[in-house]
Amino acid sequence: MPHPEPLARLIEQFQRLPGIGAKSAQRLAFHVLRTPREDADRLCDAIRDVKERVTYCSVCNTITDVDPCVYCTDTTRDPALICVVEEPQNVSVVEKTREFRGTYHVLMGALSPLSGVGPDDLKIKGLLTRVGQGQVQEVVLATNPNVEGEATALYLARLLKPLGVRVTRIATGIPVGSDIEYADEVTMAKAMLGRRDV
Amino acid sequence: MPHPEPLARLIEQFQRLPGIGAKSAQRLAFHVLRTPREDADRLCDAIRDVKERVTYCSVCNTITDVDPCVYCTDTTRDPALICVVEEPQNVSVVEKTREFRGTYHVLMGALSPLSGVGPDDLKIKGLLTRVGQGQVQEVVLATNPNVEGEATALYLARLLKPLGVRVTRIATGIPVGSDIEYADEVTMAKAMLGRRDV
Repeated sequence: MPHPEPLARLIEQFQRLPGIGAKSAQRLAFHVLRTPREDADRLCDAIRDVKERVTYCSVCNTITDVDPCVYCTDTTRDPALICVVEEPQNVSVVEKTREFRGTYHVLMGALSPLSGVGPDDLKIKGLLTRVGQGQVQEVVLATNPNVEGEATALYLARLLKPLGVRVTRIATGIPVGSDIEYADEVTMAKAMLGRRDV
Repeated sequence: MPHPEPLARLIEQFQRLPGIGAKSAQRLAFHVLRTPREDADRLCDAIRDVKERVTYCSVCNTITDVDPCVYCTDTTRDPALICVVEEPQNVSVVEKTREFRGTYHVLMGALSPLSGVGPDDLKIKGLLTRVGQGQVQEVVLATNPNVEGEATALYLARLLKPLGVRVTRIATGIPVGSDIEYADEVTMAKAMLGRRDV
């Protein structure tokens, strides 16, 4: 005997979420069933609010509920420095370091010919416009250190350098707190190449 | 700089779900942000439908969208046989075996003095009423084989036996497909005690 139809449908909907398998979806659905009505409403309201009120910044494409976003309008930030990331959620990773006081530019992906993502699918034009306005002095390319991210960084560097701006790439190497024992050979090689005087 | 308020609220709501940590909640919230509006609506509708249309069967307490549930009203099932489980989701585990053609009774928990769950917090009265009507011949206690489940099974057995009904307990032992090498000593001891002629 299958689950009642509304419950089966909720399990199916939960399963469509990333990282949620059949067992987790069932556990979540049963949780919703047990939870007070108000808690379920709060979850729904939060989902609807995100769809209604959160958009992308028209300048840097990060997620925001005001446009332009708080990063772009923050006068204590250095507008001469732009950090380029692939996804909006990468911005908060950089922010958590409390080391970066420039602005951002979100590409909304990375070049990936195999997945059919070309330069026109990324928010590159806006970046070139911002740099072309002359105020920007350095662009830090913080795309992922994988094939797609490296290709995107190279591609952007070729476009940006002729505009007379300094283009840098975040360092790759052994993560802090990790053990060299477990480093793969590519990371170890990058760490060796990127060695610095102490 | 924190996330926009609606997004932070959605992450917080997702984190309240069982098995969803901070990282998963953020990934889910960003997924909702990216997903088409219709998909987000479908998830919300499914949540609301479960809260509105799914209830507990007034006879056996399993989850259902009709009352009494499909198990209780199925005339091909044996009303003389009741399988007692702790939670509504346990019913589908028993159903999947396709071996059981009796009816169910969901206790909505197990005795747990440490968590303050006593006999009055469980749906025991309804079970006694059903058995007291005289039609029931056997009650299979399928509570979990842990401290709470065993205590609940013992407690129920003491209440049910005087009503002149056969009371049985599901077998504990080495799971099928598993290796004796990895069995804990309590399970192995139960398997030994429960040995049968071949």
